[in-house]
Amino acid sequence: MSDLPLDYELLARLGAKSKTFDAGEKVFLEDDLGTGLFVVKSGRVDVITYGTVLENVRAGGIVGEMALIDDGPRSAAAIAAEPTEVLAIDKQTFLELIRAEPEFALQVMRILTNRLRRMNKQL
Amino acid sequence: MSDLPLDYELLARLGAKSKTFDAGEKVFLEDDLGTGLFVVKSGRVDVITYGTVLENVRAGGIVGEMALIDDGPRSAAAIAAEPTEVLAIDKQTFLELIRAEPEFALQVMRILTNRLRRMNKQL
Repeated sequence: MSDLPLDYELLARLGAKSKTFDAGEKVFLEDDLGTGLFVVKSGRVDVITYGTVLENVRAGGIVGEMALIDDGPRSAAAIAAEPTEVLAIDKQTFLELIRAEPEFALQVMRILTNRLRRMNKQL
Repeated sequence: MSDLPLDYELLARLGAKSKTFDAGEKVFLEDDLGTGLFVVKSGRVDVITYGTVLENVRAGGIVGEMALIDDGPRSAAAIAAEPTEVLAIDKQTFLELIRAEPEFALQVMRILTNRLRRMNKQL
């Protein structure tokens, strides 16, 4: 995913929680219920469905935004591919972040739109 | 698309421009370049690609958000299905709107996420 102009200190001030994962550890699994998204601070997270890697998400990228947005189950699994640090952001923090940095909302929308255009080509 | 908690007066204050279309008139065509999105205030806009109607967008819904988000060409055509009034929103107004009403950003993301989940099922 594209780099986000993210201010990690702002995120921490807004209440984002740091979490670390070892290589191979799951961030979440497909169909899990969960409402937070994760900003990758270092390392790499692979987004996987039915054994296919959909995305490699590196520092500055985000993962898990769909379940945060619509409160649905996780649409794919997210596995740390190497030692990884993420910042976990819940919906309240997300709304505060959007208000503080509207460009962040546009970046999330851009990620979703890129995926839609890619899938349009596959249909 | 889902109803948006939109404050039309706020939109007008932020610089959104009212436009009206007759039944059958195009709002935009596929592959058009164009950076604005349209909030449907009354009437109905159909989103069409290759003769297939993808969405019927009614009052409170939005159309044209993908090109605004990523500055790409229109991914489908939008045609007024009946006499329709829309508010045209450019990127600057969009960012101001997100700052004033972060929930609006979440609504746009929800529309994109709904589409992604629907397309995931079709793949």
